[in-house]
Amino acid sequence: WEKLVSKIVAVARNVKSLAKEDPRRIIHSLKVGLAIALVSLIYYFDPLYEGFGVSAMWAVITVVVVLEFSVGATLGRGINRGIATLVGGALGVAAHRLASCFGNEIVEPIILAMSIFLFAAAVTFVRFFPKLKTRYDYGLLIFILTFCLVSVSGYRDDEVLDIALTRLSTVMIGASASLAVCILLFPVWAGEDLHNLIADNIENLGNFLEGFGDEYFKTLEDGNVKDNKALLEGYKNVVNSKSIEDSLVNFAKWEPRHGRFRYRHPWGQYQKIGGLIRECTYRLDSLNSYLKSEMQTPHEIREKFQEFCKIMSSESSNALRNFALTIRTMKNSSAANSHIVIAKTAADNLKILLKTNPWQQTDLLEIIPVATVASLLIEVVSCTAKIAESVQE
Amino acid sequence: WEKLVSKIVAVARNVKSLAKEDPRRIIHSLKVGLAIALVSLIYYFDPLYEGFGVSAMWAVITVVVVLEFSVGATLGRGINRGIATLVGGALGVAAHRLASCFGNEIVEPIILAMSIFLFAAAVTFVRFFPKLKTRYDYGLLIFILTFCLVSVSGYRDDEVLDIALTRLSTVMIGASASLAVCILLFPVWAGEDLHNLIADNIENLGNFLEGFGDEYFKTLEDGNVKDNKALLEGYKNVVNSKSIEDSLVNFAKWEPRHGRFRYRHPWGQYQKIGGLIRECTYRLDSLNSYLKSEMQTPHEIREKFQEFCKIMSSESSNALRNFALTIRTMKNSSAANSHIVIAKTAADNLKILLKTNPWQQTDLLEIIPVATVASLLIEVVSCTAKIAESVQE
Repeated sequence: WEKLVSKIVAVARNVKSLAKEDPRRIIHSLKVGLAIALVSLIYYFDPLYEGFGVSAMWAVITVVVVLEFSVGATLGRGINRGIATLVGGALGVAAHRLASCFGNEIVEPIILAMSIFLFAAAVTFVRFFPKLKTRYDYGLLIFILTFCLVSVSGYRDDEVLDIALTRLSTVMIGASASLAVCILLFPVWAGEDLHNLIADNIENLGNFLEGFGDEYFKTLEDGNVKDNKALLEGYKNVVNSKSIEDSLVNFAKWEPRHGRFRYRHPWGQYQKIGGLIRECTYRLDSLNSYLKSEMQTPHEIREKFQEFCKIMSSESSNALRNFALTIRTMKNSSAANSHIVIAKTAADNLKILLKTNPWQQTDLLEIIPVATVASLLIEVVSCTAKIAESVQE
Repeated sequence: WEKLVSKIVAVARNVKSLAKEDPRRIIHSLKVGLAIALVSLIYYFDPLYEGFGVSAMWAVITVVVVLEFSVGATLGRGINRGIATLVGGALGVAAHRLASCFGNEIVEPIILAMSIFLFAAAVTFVRFFPKLKTRYDYGLLIFILTFCLVSVSGYRDDEVLDIALTRLSTVMIGASASLAVCILLFPVWAGEDLHNLIADNIENLGNFLEGFGDEYFKTLEDGNVKDNKALLEGYKNVVNSKSIEDSLVNFAKWEPRHGRFRYRHPWGQYQKIGGLIRECTYRLDSLNSYLKSEMQTPHEIREKFQEFCKIMSSESSNALRNFALTIRTMKNSSAANSHIVIAKTAADNLKILLKTNPWQQTDLLEIIPVATVASLLIEVVSCTAKIAESVQE
């Protein structure tokens, strides 16, 4: 019994944290409930029922299946479903007409079955095309569905055209109800989410770099430097954000002008920046492994590197945070550029220091870790500069 | 006109390359066509039609929606859909009974609409739980769908139980038809695909490392070393394979014993290996950027590093290929371990070389790139050892 109680408490805590993480989840759930309850009214009101018959359920189904979290996803599904129902229905009617021309009890089902086989197989294969898969997969599925339903049910009812039209109009009703609820009540725009995701990711890199300089060059004496584990782990989510980014871009492409974004906002650019961010993150992952490495460089050598490395890491961090701000406010600021210039100067100075080679007598093995860190930081700086270019576009 | 022809030719070429890449795609398309055409027979045969009425279309819909590329995906969807239809139908009937107790024309629709709102909103929220989302998302969706259809259509027909039962049995027919076609005709097992994907990825890393040693240390004189661009680019797919891996693991968990895999094969282990592989890949990406770097180390210094670095890279490469083979054949071989031992010895020797520091007078800046490469390679060796442990489990 106590187990049950503790289980319930755990679930409740889970629910709370999910809702806290993104309160729009609750709103979305309520929106779905509302939209479905609304469309169910079609069944309740008699005049509409007389018009549509059992097919009215297609409206309910459409709402359940089409209403998604973001406007872009809902629009994408709605448009896919609408057009696929139209085309699939039309072809279904055509196939049925063709089959009934023969007017033969044996030939007719054979022709229908053949056409279903052909269309289903062909369209299923088309779904493997990567480009079509990302944008029109759902539409192709619904096309097969509608084609089969119309051509087959036509075989029974001899009112094919009627069935196709009812299905089309109920689907339209369902899709427009979903869209109305989705857009009019607290809309969630995939484009905005994408925009924020990219800004967050850049900020995460910045946070890592800020923490890294202090963490790596902290001396044993001041062991109690403020614990910035959280800062240093933040980049790990960035590594795996590709699939989220891709789907958000896909949704955003469906969205009309909203807020600060116009219809054909260059969403592809976000994917490009995302790619650069990830490339930079791989370097950070290598850097991170040096934080834990046992190969350590003696204090006096570190000290020489310390200054430049700290500058590189903190200035790239500042630059990255500036980009994040630039993206968030969508205002070009030149502050980031000056940070990059400082970071590059530090990199050059470090190179000069290395050229003069002040450690002729020391163990090369001890220099290498810190040298590697330095050269990775140099790369991070150049990655940062690349991100800068892309952001400015 | 010519444009049209060239367009058609391009599409045909696309189709051919898609089919060549994975011939199972064609087989899958034919399977889908066959399954749908088969189930459509339910409509054709009169006795069955009498039994199910218009509901027979649910069987067709189920096939279209459930039949997926791999057995695991089909099983997952089929089981989800079956159980969700059962539970949703039962609750729908219950809600309808409850509402009709009041027997009031005004109260009844209100109760029904309320219950639909509550269930739809609650279940939509539940879909946000990450664990449930990966495995039961589709089932939760179908639950909402069935619940609405049964409780609402019940309001009309007063034959709720009948509707729920017909829907359940038609869905079952559709699902079992899909499963039969999916499993009996040239089945595609997600588990096997996952297994091969991991082996391929490991092999890709091995290929990169094999090419890397030669490419990095090739001298200007022998500029026409065999062009191994392809080898060196292969690792790039590995970086982004996480989402594919995750979905394959998810599908594989649904699959019964097949071939060399038993029902509860440790699929989670594959994800772990996949993660290690990706970590290793990030190092390779850093290494790759040194191939293009302008900072170059003079010939005489490189030469000293060359031997050990080449050994490290080729031996890790051999070890990785051995893992790939181990995975493919599922036979434990100790050959990989000896490769790792050799690679580790080379790493240690390199460290000793560095300790003696034979370049007291040289420009430190010129050593650093090759030193970084060496230290990255050392890390790759230790990553490889980690992968070894996981593979052996």
